[in-house]
Amino acid sequence: MPTPEELLAKARKPAEEALRLHAYYKGKIQTAPKCPIRGVEDFSIWYTPGVAAPCRAIQARPDLVYEHTNKANSIAVISDGTRVLGLGDIGPEAGLPVMEGKALLFKYLGGVDAVPICLGTKDPDEIVRTVKVLEPSFGGINLEDISMPKCFRVLREARRLCTIPVWHDDQQGTGTVVLAAVLNALKVVGKQIGHVRLAMIGMGAANIPTYRYLKACGADAGKIVACDLGGILGPYRREYQTDQDYSEQWTVCVESNREQRRGGIAEALAGADVCVAFAAGGIIRPEWVRTMARDAIVLACANPVPEIWPWEAKAAGARIVATGRSDFPNQVNNSLVFPAVFRGALDVRAGTITDEMAMAAAHELAQCAADKGLHDGYILPAMDEWEVVPRVAVATAMKAQAQGVARLLKTAEELHRSAVDRISDARKALAVLTGQGVIPTPPNPEP
Amino acid sequence: MPTPEELLAKARKPAEEALRLHAYYKGKIQTAPKCPIRGVEDFSIWYTPGVAAPCRAIQARPDLVYEHTNKANSIAVISDGTRVLGLGDIGPEAGLPVMEGKALLFKYLGGVDAVPICLGTKDPDEIVRTVKVLEPSFGGINLEDISMPKCFRVLREARRLCTIPVWHDDQQGTGTVVLAAVLNALKVVGKQIGHVRLAMIGMGAANIPTYRYLKACGADAGKIVACDLGGILGPYRREYQTDQDYSEQWTVCVESNREQRRGGIAEALAGADVCVAFAAGGIIRPEWVRTMARDAIVLACANPVPEIWPWEAKAAGARIVATGRSDFPNQVNNSLVFPAVFRGALDVRAGTITDEMAMAAAHELAQCAADKGLHDGYILPAMDEWEVVPRVAVATAMKAQAQGVARLLKTAEELHRSAVDRISDARKALAVLTGQGVIPTPPNPEP
Repeated sequence: MPTPEELLAKARKPAEEALRLHAYYKGKIQTAPKCPIRGVEDFSIWYTPGVAAPCRAIQARPDLVYEHTNKANSIAVISDGTRVLGLGDIGPEAGLPVMEGKALLFKYLGGVDAVPICLGTKDPDEIVRTVKVLEPSFGGINLEDISMPKCFRVLREARRLCTIPVWHDDQQGTGTVVLAAVLNALKVVGKQIGHVRLAMIGMGAANIPTYRYLKACGADAGKIVACDLGGILGPYRREYQTDQDYSEQWTVCVESNREQRRGGIAEALAGADVCVAFAAGGIIRPEWVRTMARDAIVLACANPVPEIWPWEAKAAGARIVATGRSDFPNQVNNSLVFPAVFRGALDVRAGTITDEMAMAAAHELAQCAADKGLHDGYILPAMDEWEVVPRVAVATAMKAQAQGVARLLKTAEELHRSAVDRISDARKALAVLTGQGVIPTPPNPEP
Repeated sequence: MPTPEELLAKARKPAEEALRLHAYYKGKIQTAPKCPIRGVEDFSIWYTPGVAAPCRAIQARPDLVYEHTNKANSIAVISDGTRVLGLGDIGPEAGLPVMEGKALLFKYLGGVDAVPICLGTKDPDEIVRTVKVLEPSFGGINLEDISMPKCFRVLREARRLCTIPVWHDDQQGTGTVVLAAVLNALKVVGKQIGHVRLAMIGMGAANIPTYRYLKACGADAGKIVACDLGGILGPYRREYQTDQDYSEQWTVCVESNREQRRGGIAEALAGADVCVAFAAGGIIRPEWVRTMARDAIVLACANPVPEIWPWEAKAAGARIVATGRSDFPNQVNNSLVFPAVFRGALDVRAGTITDEMAMAAAHELAQCAADKGLHDGYILPAMDEWEVVPRVAVATAMKAQAQGVARLLKTAEELHRSAVDRISDARKALAVLTGQGVIPTPPNPEP
């Protein structure tokens, strides 16, 4: 069993490679033609004078922008750099490597063209205004790494104003993968979602939509005990009543915790069947896990140090443990969700991504793992199970159609085929660019 | 000699192909990885946890964003869709095919990664604010197709606020290529710039910087007669005195036209050695060209129909005629300039693109043609003379260094080599994506 120090060292190891290779490649995402250029003559088609024809066609029928440009496959990954990874408010420039990485994942996993954009403002109203102003050029907006509590208002306002999907991955993306993990973990231990006690540790961007989704999937809000830095949430948490940005936290205060427990994490965990933690490394003590119910499920999602190390949680009686780390079983990883949800939303031109679409994605993600056989160490697919993204995309898109938020109607078969094609194209582009030396091989580290 | 009807028909011909092929490819520009992905494990370098290292490095030293991300090679092509081609205010969605085409040209000709962005606002202050908010993510901003007169204010304010280059191609790009054309045409006819009479027809986005550049290169402002829809510019044009957006037009009113001519195009052209027209198709009559000086030079740049057809101007005595069209000699084409100017500005991390840099670019562009041998039908290089872009990029970058606006110092040789490499990479990427079928071959038109 590795020591915490060894695991931390392991988590630090990619840092050195990352510094060396980021400096070598000077960026992770570039533009490339999507159309052939047989010679400069072709610019009379792609540029003046020919381009006036598609311009006029779009002017006459604006939705033709989806046919004559890349809008239908293009999103912006937008951050203000105020809550990047676990690093906090590091500023827009310092946030850019993360947004480029996200754009790389969008393309590689989902075939989605994503443009990394870090904004030179922290003002929520200006972020919303910028999203709205960028709307004509993109088929969707992925918000990322925006601090609490403004992220709730920014998402709500941007969704209200835009007719393209606006998604905050730290909220909906995380909530979706957590929902899938909880549903499958409950299957493994044979418990019903309507009967379990849930402890939610940390009520920020991740656990707010998780709470909504769990409730919508049958969890009893009264059996949820939520806890954050101010202690267990209840109607006495008046600081959440007056601030509109915290309106969902206030809902939790009012609806949850039927027993009216008071206290902190220890009190929240007592007797709980499930713990969903998005808080800070090492804050959950083994003795508290010992007070959880039989066959306890612990999702300890802080990165890189989870709220409790898996072997500690297991030794304290937890049956299923999941973390955000790739070096333990059951990685809770947004990458299983965002490329697929956007693939599905874009492919039916959804006007928004509803909670129901996110939950449909979670159910399909859960089913992907279930189809392979669930067990204590396998409640979610891994990142390289390539069949997952098209399946989750189809589930998202079919739900959009069923809810009437899709502008295109397609069969599941059509959607699956086009998702597979687009993802294959993206991976083939990478393969040929790498194979033909346009993307050079990484140099060896200096000895 | 083709009839005007035949030429117009020819200009319309690419329209049909453009509609068919835009719909087939659904966009002209996409994202592609810039780094290898050997497997999902590599995301621990490109994304969490490794990516935290370059983020932290940039937080500590913000200019490292140029080393660890694609900012150093990335620009935004921004329009509000209010003056797209000759089509007018067609809206941001309808402008997107042009901005995508521009992005394609930036990559193919200059190796520059350009992101097409059409804004959902026409308000000049909001355009400026958006440019400023987008600044952290890009190495430069190319403004495009923004209507008069707000384009002057937008450019001036955005340049003042930003520490990255902001360029309005319809102003500076056009002015630069026109300056090169005029310099070479004067060489061919053996006239000195300080002695010639210049008629400028249309005092909008193109002719305002052209006027500035010509003056800075030795033209005598008093010998310039400018003319727009309100007639010849002079101090009686009070409508230009009060509106800040027209401050440069007012400068022209005050400085130019020493003879105090009054009237319209006819009066402006009488005795002129050079005519630079950016006005409207067919508005220059042959009898007016007949009144120009011996060895007259006529740049008739309206598109797709020039102010006067070349054969008409020639028959009326003009010696050198240039237009914006590719099907006549002497095409005045911004594509000769913007990829090169941004290539040069980015490669030395210029904080701005000064008029002097634009004029250095124009002189080098002129020299490229001169090196091949100038004549009446060859005053500018063609778009497929591949040596031009690196040469003009070097000239731009060297001037930036000489003026102290460059953040990196490089030799001309280094700059030339890196420009050639980046352009070669872009063209190789296109070749392998096309050759390996990632970009499909265009289908034949249906019979």
